[in-house]
Amino acid sequence: ALRILSAEAVEQARSGHPGMPMGAAGMAYVLWTRFLRHDPRDPRWPDRDRFVLSAGHGSMLLYSLLHLSGYDLTLEEIRRFRQWGSLTPGHPEYGRTPGVETTTGPLGQGFANAVGMAMAERFLAGRFNRPGRAIVDHRTYVLAGDGDLMEGVTHEAASLAGHLRLGRLIVLYDDNRITIEGPTSLAWSDDTPARFAALGWQVQSATGEEPQGLTAAIESALADEARPSLIAVRTHIGQGSPNRQDSAKAHGEPLGEEELRLTKQALGWPLAPAFHIPEEAREVFRAAAARGADRRREWLASLEAYAREFPELKAEWDRWQSGEPPCGWREDLAAMEIPAEPTATRVASGLAIQRLARRMPNLVGGSADLGPSNNSVIAGQGSFTPGAVEGPNIHFGVREHAMAAAVNGLALHGGLRPYCATFLVFSDYMRPSLRLAALMGVPSLFLFTHDSIGVGEDGPTHQPVEHLAALRAIPGLTVIRPADARETVEAWQTALERGGPVALVLTRQKVPALARGLDRATTGEAAGAPAGARGGAPAGAVPPVARGAYILAEEPAPADGPPELILIGTGSETSLCLEAQRRLAALGIRARAVSMPSWELFDEQDEAYRHRVLPPAVSARLAVEAAVPMGWERYVGQEGAILAMGRFGASAPAEALFARFGFTVEHILELALALLKRPLPIGSGPGR
Amino acid sequence: ALRILSAEAVEQARSGHPGMPMGAAGMAYVLWTRFLRHDPRDPRWPDRDRFVLSAGHGSMLLYSLLHLSGYDLTLEEIRRFRQWGSLTPGHPEYGRTPGVETTTGPLGQGFANAVGMAMAERFLAGRFNRPGRAIVDHRTYVLAGDGDLMEGVTHEAASLAGHLRLGRLIVLYDDNRITIEGPTSLAWSDDTPARFAALGWQVQSATGEEPQGLTAAIESALADEARPSLIAVRTHIGQGSPNRQDSAKAHGEPLGEEELRLTKQALGWPLAPAFHIPEEAREVFRAAAARGADRRREWLASLEAYAREFPELKAEWDRWQSGEPPCGWREDLAAMEIPAEPTATRVASGLAIQRLARRMPNLVGGSADLGPSNNSVIAGQGSFTPGAVEGPNIHFGVREHAMAAAVNGLALHGGLRPYCATFLVFSDYMRPSLRLAALMGVPSLFLFTHDSIGVGEDGPTHQPVEHLAALRAIPGLTVIRPADARETVEAWQTALERGGPVALVLTRQKVPALARGLDRATTGEAAGAPAGARGGAPAGAVPPVARGAYILAEEPAPADGPPELILIGTGSETSLCLEAQRRLAALGIRARAVSMPSWELFDEQDEAYRHRVLPPAVSARLAVEAAVPMGWERYVGQEGAILAMGRFGASAPAEALFARFGFTVEHILELALALLKRPLPIGSGPGR
Repeated sequence: ALRILSAEAVEQARSGHPGMPMGAAGMAYVLWTRFLRHDPRDPRWPDRDRFVLSAGHGSMLLYSLLHLSGYDLTLEEIRRFRQWGSLTPGHPEYGRTPGVETTTGPLGQGFANAVGMAMAERFLAGRFNRPGRAIVDHRTYVLAGDGDLMEGVTHEAASLAGHLRLGRLIVLYDDNRITIEGPTSLAWSDDTPARFAALGWQVQSATGEEPQGLTAAIESALADEARPSLIAVRTHIGQGSPNRQDSAKAHGEPLGEEELRLTKQALGWPLAPAFHIPEEAREVFRAAAARGADRRREWLASLEAYAREFPELKAEWDRWQSGEPPCGWREDLAAMEIPAEPTATRVASGLAIQRLARRMPNLVGGSADLGPSNNSVIAGQGSFTPGAVEGPNIHFGVREHAMAAAVNGLALHGGLRPYCATFLVFSDYMRPSLRLAALMGVPSLFLFTHDSIGVGEDGPTHQPVEHLAALRAIPGLTVIRPADARETVEAWQTALERGGPVALVLTRQKVPALARGLDRATTGEAAGAPAGARGGAPAGAVPPVARGAYILAEEPAPADGPPELILIGTGSETSLCLEAQRRLAALGIRARAVSMPSWELFDEQDEAYRHRVLPPAVSARLAVEAAVPMGWERYVGQEGAILAMGRFGASAPAEALFARFGFTVEHILELALALLKRPLPIGSGPGR
Repeated sequence: ALRILSAEAVEQARSGHPGMPMGAAGMAYVLWTRFLRHDPRDPRWPDRDRFVLSAGHGSMLLYSLLHLSGYDLTLEEIRRFRQWGSLTPGHPEYGRTPGVETTTGPLGQGFANAVGMAMAERFLAGRFNRPGRAIVDHRTYVLAGDGDLMEGVTHEAASLAGHLRLGRLIVLYDDNRITIEGPTSLAWSDDTPARFAALGWQVQSATGEEPQGLTAAIESALADEARPSLIAVRTHIGQGSPNRQDSAKAHGEPLGEEELRLTKQALGWPLAPAFHIPEEAREVFRAAAARGADRRREWLASLEAYAREFPELKAEWDRWQSGEPPCGWREDLAAMEIPAEPTATRVASGLAIQRLARRMPNLVGGSADLGPSNNSVIAGQGSFTPGAVEGPNIHFGVREHAMAAAVNGLALHGGLRPYCATFLVFSDYMRPSLRLAALMGVPSLFLFTHDSIGVGEDGPTHQPVEHLAALRAIPGLTVIRPADARETVEAWQTALERGGPVALVLTRQKVPALARGLDRATTGEAAGAPAGARGGAPAGAVPPVARGAYILAEEPAPADGPPELILIGTGSETSLCLEAQRRLAALGIRARAVSMPSWELFDEQDEAYRHRVLPPAVSARLAVEAAVPMGWERYVGQEGAILAMGRFGASAPAEALFARFGFTVEHILELALALLKRPLPIGSGPGR
């Protein structure tokens, strides 16, 4: 039934991947009818087993399983496979189809998500389970193909899983020995069992057509809680198709009408009607689902008992499960002491983490071996290690890609607020996972420090220039580059309030605390609020950072008419704009300094606000950002100017680089006066 | 000498990584004085051994080795470590410092570059060596750290190297057991020897302080030509520093004045003067260099004999080494038959590859298991496989990241014109290597097919939307998105003429052949040249694509005054603009259709040309591209409009998606008329 349903849907769509569902149907059958603990009537049951189809091109296998198991996925939707608006897109999409735990397709991502899910399970179990009351007690299953196993992100994730001894992670490897270009042996000679054994995994083998052998292997995997498990299941791509089985053609093409007919014959299936599902197939899955429903009822009863025995823990459990930060967190953040002296925004972010962690014990995260540099460590709390899985500090190792994918998995699992950190330049290593976080809309939080030529001596390999643009290009990712410590704290508040993924972009070097001379109407704050006083905006108010851009200063104060010139800065360049604005005021020029930590947030504001901050009448605009200029035209217009990095950086002390590349108050003044077509005042030297 | 020189340079710079050079000095000494075959007086000697410092943060070790060996790198430059304009940047930079084979620092990249270099050596050896005349006969050595080994790209590269049996690749693993966050055991439990053995590697171990053991291990690695070799060398980070050795602090901080003094004492080194190098240290390296020079002289003599015995092969060798395409290639490409019927640009690219490969036997490349989809296979020629390394078709496996890094290595090695291919959406997996190609300016060629929602049913996981912007953001990378078969052929020509890396962005779906109604002055071509006739521009002429943008059509023909409106398209959207231009002409509106395959190329044109194509007087401009709009403001200005994808795509047939997202002639007309503030003509429906 799984084979034919999958092949028929692909045929109907005239597009898709029949080979994998047909080859892996046997193992999926064993897993879903004998082991997977889930209740199709509550796809969000917190203690369900997770099933991740890492080989996402085999989506029809998953849709067939979901349909047969009784999820809210009708046969009509399966007939609409790969059509506009259907619940059955070409690759599984989280949030679209009930029972789909993560969006997969880009290879290796699902595998690495699953490592994050398995980490979440262990973390939550460590925090909440009590003797006799294991309210967190589930497994994470993965179905992966050879393409998944070849990807580097899978290696990283497998190495991390082995290190962390994630014994509840069980990967079924669909060993069909066929890739798109031909037999896997064309490009791949790994000794896969030995490879995974070397990473600390339990490794077994089985065949797809022997339910007993596979059953025994899964049982053995379940019994070994000290090691993640890989079960290499020998399968045959396109199994049942007389002329396509074991061929690369089976991978990504419909069988064709005639071959589908021959396949039905070969499998002893009625030739008509199409999309036929025999009652006995439904019965097997229904029985499995009924067992899952029983388990969920037992779990609910156990949770009730747990609530009686451990009412405080149960309240905490509910808070974590809600996905919301705890009451009072905004007030607490707002009460935070903000350094008045020059402070790197990565340091300010570290302070915010400490503050937040006091109230948010489900804030978990770590770095790809740059914790001390990223200021991402929660002080005074333990590490998530093989022996003590309740520590919130995760050591991801030098594995940026798996880190990001695992954080997505931690977020997808539910119950936690995960973050991860590395240098901004290494966001490149994580992009496929950043993209999927955005596509799924999960609240993964990415801290990127060392955000410009401010990196200094490490040179162009470590100095991001194109990364801000590249991150801003991802739909659904909110990028925030705060200008000082206070903006950093507000950025954290904003990040925690967003539904989707957020990237905080932070300096290595110190930046001054900026005095805000902004008007009350813009921000809900009193004008002239002193820097260095307290944290975020008053609880209840929208902090200026959440608006994406705001008027930082203007002298004389904003009048009815617009200013002559607008200087727009982000991050470490904002203070240069502020100082230039002051110098212009001294020359009698009314300039406005705008701090613009986030394009995405600003673009979401209503037109009145946007025009208030950037009045259309003012065409003399200068944006200042130590990154490629791409996209700034949108905000400065055709008559504006952009002071940016049009090239890679260089190795030298940061101060030298800022001067050499023209990021100085003098150069800003020069460009500003040129925009206004005014001469340089006597005594002003050239900006570079 | 290596230890102290490195530590002193870091101390002088007050920035850098002393620990790795101090720990790895012993193994570097053994390799460079006993094995490495190189001649410092000719750093580009084609048959030199390659040495790649994958752990690029240990740059001072490499600079010390280069200085002592007699490369053109003075002590003065070493004193200027990490300063503006010095030859000793924070991480090794290819093209800046003689003897630096590749730019490293982002971990794993050097390792994977080296795999490409080792592939190049085998390919060239297979093509050129003759019995008794092994003119290609060198090794590739890598010094890698634990960070390199943890990165996924290294796994992919190691797996590929094992598969291809690159027996001349020898990796010394600096096993110092310390990472930035602490001991490697914090995050890493791999059984590294077993892991590499599982990938088909010879694995040995040694210690950094026992030259005999390491010598024997390298000899054994050299003797095993069937397998790449990993030698795990137990070292001590910061060795010799009494208080920093074996500590994470040794990694990335100067020792400090006092500790440097203590280190000198501990190592029995004179406390003064600074940067002291004893003559006996110089002598050892000088002797090794002299042996290398002898080897080069022998090689030159052998090459002379080879030239006499195999004059045609020698001529071919010279052509390959020159880095230039062979004579007549432009004419040959220009004579190519271009399909007149609708053709996917990926298919046109495949045709161009076939044509070019006839004359360019050093064109080598392949795909990350998408060859049939990327149309990247050279027909009728063999594969680069373990048994037959002369085939130009490389099966990279599902390893996009290592593929890109290996292509950089193939390009860095010299003698070859390498390319690689995958879907555009998976360019994300390769970004760290794309960036390094751009930073180094090497002519790696990247083919990215399936370039938009034209992917169709596979859905948003496989539909790039932000990738064009993200690629354009990389300084030094030329991105070309041709509109039809002819532009594709011209794009290939342009790519081969560029010095640096190029990304060709190609459609999955068919696009019509565009009739060019362009004026002679713009392009050197006669107006109204029929489509489907011949290939690129006449030899000698600059093809329109090389200009980045050109006037595709205008009706009535361009007069002295500017048109009323400009429609700008790229790739598959260009034909929509052309059709809209025709429809506007029928309404009596003089519109110009501009084809703009490349921003970078257009931005390089002189102002006269740019203003000719996009006259500043015309503010009614509409850009059409099925990708995020970011950056288009630069070309359409504040009063222009952008028809783009502001969101992720969806799973449905491609035609449905183009219609749903508004990429239709009707919608373009609607937007164009709105720009001109003219009413829609009667009978025109809405565009979506």
